[in-house]
Amino acid sequence: MGAKKVAVLGAGSWGTALAIVLADNGHDVTIWARRYSQAKEMNEHKTNEQYLSDVTLPENITVTTDVKEAVKERDAVIISVPTSGIREMTRQLLEANRKIPLVVHATKGIEPDTLLRVSEMMEEEGIHKLSSNLAVLSGPSHAEEVARRQPTTVTVSSQVMNAAKMSQDLFMNTQFRVYTSQDMVGVELGGALKNVMALGVGLAEGLGYGDNAKAAIMTRGIAEMTRLGTKLGADPLTFAGLSGLGDLIVTCTSKYSRNWRAGYRLGRGVSLDQVLEEMGMVVEGVKTTQAVSQLAKKEGVEVPITTAIYDCLFNGQSPVRAGQLLMDRDPKKETEH
Amino acid sequence: MGAKKVAVLGAGSWGTALAIVLADNGHDVTIWARRYSQAKEMNEHKTNEQYLSDVTLPENITVTTDVKEAVKERDAVIISVPTSGIREMTRQLLEANRKIPLVVHATKGIEPDTLLRVSEMMEEEGIHKLSSNLAVLSGPSHAEEVARRQPTTVTVSSQVMNAAKMSQDLFMNTQFRVYTSQDMVGVELGGALKNVMALGVGLAEGLGYGDNAKAAIMTRGIAEMTRLGTKLGADPLTFAGLSGLGDLIVTCTSKYSRNWRAGYRLGRGVSLDQVLEEMGMVVEGVKTTQAVSQLAKKEGVEVPITTAIYDCLFNGQSPVRAGQLLMDRDPKKETEH
Repeated sequence: MGAKKVAVLGAGSWGTALAIVLADNGHDVTIWARRYSQAKEMNEHKTNEQYLSDVTLPENITVTTDVKEAVKERDAVIISVPTSGIREMTRQLLEANRKIPLVVHATKGIEPDTLLRVSEMMEEEGIHKLSSNLAVLSGPSHAEEVARRQPTTVTVSSQVMNAAKMSQDLFMNTQFRVYTSQDMVGVELGGALKNVMALGVGLAEGLGYGDNAKAAIMTRGIAEMTRLGTKLGADPLTFAGLSGLGDLIVTCTSKYSRNWRAGYRLGRGVSLDQVLEEMGMVVEGVKTTQAVSQLAKKEGVEVPITTAIYDCLFNGQSPVRAGQLLMDRDPKKETEH
Repeated sequence: MGAKKVAVLGAGSWGTALAIVLADNGHDVTIWARRYSQAKEMNEHKTNEQYLSDVTLPENITVTTDVKEAVKERDAVIISVPTSGIREMTRQLLEANRKIPLVVHATKGIEPDTLLRVSEMMEEEGIHKLSSNLAVLSGPSHAEEVARRQPTTVTVSSQVMNAAKMSQDLFMNTQFRVYTSQDMVGVELGGALKNVMALGVGLAEGLGYGDNAKAAIMTRGIAEMTRLGTKLGADPLTFAGLSGLGDLIVTCTSKYSRNWRAGYRLGRGVSLDQVLEEMGMVVEGVKTTQAVSQLAKKEGVEVPITTAIYDCLFNGQSPVRAGQLLMDRDPKKETEH
């Protein structure tokens, strides 16, 4: 495919890494950054020290703090902001009021209270007025490794197959392999739900349990995510893919994962308040645990691992006891068809 | 359930760990060991230093080197010997010539040349003359952790649902949670095929690739195992379960895995002959890679990761180049229905 004009909204580690992939593919890339000082650093020094150190930005990336300028005459817009910023970002896009051939979001989360997925939040804000091609990009991908051009695989998914194909064409290269999917529900849920399981694996490791317990939580966690996701309209096989299992593996085997670390500290006996204070930043899995508990209750789906984690976080349950209760449940079949 | 009389054939780390689980459940357990010195040590000192150090065997385990004595009047026989010893073990059981209500094997592998699964090897030797209830036990389970009573989950599978239920009743306790399945083909294949992927993950890590590459090989590896397994009659969901994904996680995230270590050394540029010499023991994944390549060719199933590993092992392919070829294949959908 020929070179395209692409905007990346969000200059965090993931937005910047995706911009680098696009620039490597020869596209003309504009990043929107919220802070002027960051935009200036990225333009003048070709670095993004706070979010992605030791990386030099390619020449064909420019950075602006003006959304309208960023999205002007763009063939595609990539959105990489936190879940809590999705509605505002979508509104700003609508104010810029341009038709956009392709919109791809790369944000993982579920909105508290409304329990909506990211694409549903964008739909509610009216994204369809700008573009009929909305896709999500997700998968096992530390931004640092992507920026260092290490081999990485992801999934792009859209209800519109052509939008997924367009996204694949845009991003795919020798280091960054992109698979397509039409199961947007499954891909979005996988990225959000895996953070709950990362908390659980951290908890078990904090208690001193070994690899068997870790593998059990991850595997039965995928089964639980699949059960809930299927009820919400996802394809069960999606959870065995890159945006489900793959992302879960990366999150649970990296000691850098905030969710894993929070779980680990809880497992060591530290209280939730103290853990959150120590970490000094949002631990997404904590909010997602609440959201998933609510979703499961609403849909009547059994989610024993999530419930155990919820009880440890919010009901003063001891992690050891929660683990015992999980192990002591009635004998089961492995899959219920 | 009441206490049963159970024989465990094989006194390696896994056989011994399973005997401990059974003894904890109050069953009367006899282990068959090949070597007299080992049987003596286990009976007199209640230890098994070579295979499972730092463990004291419960009082209700006795050890013998006589197969006939071991299986006399037993309600169940558990087989835990290497794949290469399965036929001989089955023949010895037949010579003992006793009807056995339940036979469970816990051996992972595929027979070279015949490409048969373990239960198929046992069938060929005539196991059905002894028992109509044949099951397999598999899942993410380091023997050392099981022996230390750390939380562990496994799957027992049999074409006869009642045999799976009987196995679940026999083994299940608070630290050792057992799920049932009727997909024996999938459970047996998962345990064998995962060793190929462990080699692949080791190779990638030996090359210096990061968590993204590791998660990619594991996830696309499961997809590949599922594709081949489904062609051979397995249920695709089995590979997302404890005996597939779960076992793969334990094998690929533990530096103690022989297959991972062999792959790692290959990735560092060491030749296969030298790696095998260094390790001084069988690396099962090497033989399984050959078997899976043959199986895939016979069944007409695409197994790009296995093929890449095969080429590195046997065709002098450089691991870097093999990785590039994998990443450079045509764009794909994530799941092909």
